[in-house]
Amino acid sequence: MVSERLARQVEFLLEVDRLKGVFRQSYVLGGERKENSAEHSWHVALMAVVLAEHAPPGTDWARVVRLLLVHDLVEIDAGDAYFYDPAANAAKDERERLAADRIFGLLPADQALELRAAWEEFEAGETPEARFAKGMDRLMPLLHNHHTRGRSWLEHGIRREQVGQRLLPDLEKASPAFRELAQTLIDDAVRQGWLAE
Amino acid sequence: MVSERLARQVEFLLEVDRLKGVFRQSYVLGGERKENSAEHSWHVALMAVVLAEHAPPGTDWARVVRLLLVHDLVEIDAGDAYFYDPAANAAKDERERLAADRIFGLLPADQALELRAAWEEFEAGETPEARFAKGMDRLMPLLHNHHTRGRSWLEHGIRREQVGQRLLPDLEKASPAFRELAQTLIDDAVRQGWLAE
Repeated sequence: MVSERLARQVEFLLEVDRLKGVFRQSYVLGGERKENSAEHSWHVALMAVVLAEHAPPGTDWARVVRLLLVHDLVEIDAGDAYFYDPAANAAKDERERLAADRIFGLLPADQALELRAAWEEFEAGETPEARFAKGMDRLMPLLHNHHTRGRSWLEHGIRREQVGQRLLPDLEKASPAFRELAQTLIDDAVRQGWLAE
Repeated sequence: MVSERLARQVEFLLEVDRLKGVFRQSYVLGGERKENSAEHSWHVALMAVVLAEHAPPGTDWARVVRLLLVHDLVEIDAGDAYFYDPAANAAKDERERLAADRIFGLLPADQALELRAAWEEFEAGETPEARFAKGMDRLMPLLHNHHTRGRSWLEHGIRREQVGQRLLPDLEKASPAFRELAQTLIDDAVRQGWLAE
């Protein structure tokens, strides 16, 4: 007999498969399609493992990874709000709260609380782990955009100051090395014509 | 200035984006396409977080997650060998070793060694963490196949004894609860006609 607890955990794991069908504005680097939030979540989690040494001392990389594995789950119901679209972002808080109620609520009660708290911790961005996780989530699309010659920036008419204002403060909080890397990539993108001045 | 070390880490992270283009035999649960190894890696890593309590005492879930985040990277060069295809699996060891040389070799030397060791640990399946990680990697396709009414089993003419022989020993090593769950799903699949007797 499979315990009811394990059955609920499995039901949750099957439901979150749907994150593979939530598409973002960034492209996979081969350029043939946009990426989905499940593969993005893997990519930023691995990024946190590889870049862990750049985090402030005492940051727990395992907790960072845990935050990143769940950070986009609410998009299953609430969709992916494009980072540079203020209208999409204004309405999203309430939608995401409802999504969190439903999706984490599939788990046994103690785990529902625990993983929902991880998502809320990521969103609030106040612990060292949440700040570092948010840094990963900001840095990755920048790498993607730079590597695809500004493909998604150009499609949406994004300008340098929008990228700087939205990314640099979060990256600075995660690690000064990331802010510097971002500044280099942004300057280069403007010079190449991949990002409007 | 961006340090050479960070530049190499970024190069590695950009290169492994290609895992999003390696497709497996299992379908996403909506059924509209096969899944790729990057989103699969996210799914099993999250599974390890959710099912951690079923691991033998002392298993370190963070190390399990780390193994799962890198376990399929070699497929970027070596491709995904279908689990039930002996010919594909016989040739794969040497291909995967060469892939590991190249892909982990993109990282700074100390990290190349460290992450390659994680991949080798997963493959060897001898530590508690590797056994649990392998259990996740075995259980997920079973859940997928059962949930899609045996879609990939039926396409490949897979029989009950093949599934049992290849899955149950690894699942037993990961956790008796998983072996039991697997047995229940296999029996049900045979009864429903999704898996040949």
